[in-house]
Amino acid sequence: MLQTKGQETRSHILLESRRLFTLQGFQNTSISTIIAATGVKKGNLYYHFPSKEELGLAVLLDARDEFFTILEHSFVGDRMVPRILHSCNAIKGLIQQGDFVAGCLFGNTALEMTDANSRFGQIIREVFSHWIELIEQELQLEADLTAVDPPLSTESLAIAIVALLEGGIMLARVYQDGKNLEVCITAIHGLLIPLS
Amino acid sequence: MLQTKGQETRSHILLESRRLFTLQGFQNTSISTIIAATGVKKGNLYYHFPSKEELGLAVLLDARDEFFTILEHSFVGDRMVPRILHSCNAIKGLIQQGDFVAGCLFGNTALEMTDANSRFGQIIREVFSHWIELIEQELQLEADLTAVDPPLSTESLAIAIVALLEGGIMLARVYQDGKNLEVCITAIHGLLIPLS
Repeated sequence: MLQTKGQETRSHILLESRRLFTLQGFQNTSISTIIAATGVKKGNLYYHFPSKEELGLAVLLDARDEFFTILEHSFVGDRMVPRILHSCNAIKGLIQQGDFVAGCLFGNTALEMTDANSRFGQIIREVFSHWIELIEQELQLEADLTAVDPPLSTESLAIAIVALLEGGIMLARVYQDGKNLEVCITAIHGLLIPLS
Repeated sequence: MLQTKGQETRSHILLESRRLFTLQGFQNTSISTIIAATGVKKGNLYYHFPSKEELGLAVLLDARDEFFTILEHSFVGDRMVPRILHSCNAIKGLIQQGDFVAGCLFGNTALEMTDANSRFGQIIREVFSHWIELIEQELQLEADLTAVDPPLSTESLAIAIVALLEGGIMLARVYQDGKNLEVCITAIHGLLIPLS
């Protein structure tokens, strides 16, 4: 689908702002930094996004939609365990694109903005809730939950998987190295073993 | 040990700044906010900490020392699994003190400052490395690692435990509720079961 010139400018601002917000945080990225990075004139930027808050929300919504699309296609395979591991590795691939420096926009914004802005917090909660829900649906396909000791519900196991990924992404960022995220995916495999 | 007036002021500035940095981030906390929150005069603040960076580093070092002391005393019990779970619950207690709002200073600063300031990054890496090392030492006390499938080394298992705690703290902050952190501690138990 061809974009109009205006839509192209909007997309360009959204992607460049996403990169900057992920790398250096929302509050620490000024409008003038975004203007410098995008080459878009101030008036034009404000035409598309009337305030920095509106820009931040639009970036989150745009990233949410893209993440959900990727996520929904990331469970590949015949059986539940390989399907979930395939999804985990797809997320590792996304993080790797930023060389483990930028980390996860949602995780970073969760720590920075959940308390400061309830509209940001709402989108972040929606992202994590849907992510947990999708994994839970996968787990329900095959799980014989009595096999896990202590018993973890499918919801709890899904929460633990997302926590391991986000914790692994945090450690990847701390050490600027993907090794820890790989370790966390192996641990996810370990949690799923009793179910396979 | 009695503190001099100067030491008292220094400790007061450190604790109040730690609270603010944890809650709203380092870059987003201005010196004037710290002055307002502490009631300390600007000249006196700069007498103790010549720059905001020096204050940030001192806060991290102070929090690191306190965290290491708590951590080193947190492995309580006769057997390895309960000792590690006791430590996890001690960390949950620390996070709970902030009503799951503030989260983990080291995790928050990791995401905010690792790339921006190498001196901050170094302290954060030291905190996570020592934490992982302490858990690894506990695991080595008893672990029969061939029981885990796929095999996780004691180091990998220690990394996964820290990632689950940090991911759980992130989710606790997102939902302002400790339930997810409890779920993550149960998942840690699940990972340790083959070793108990």
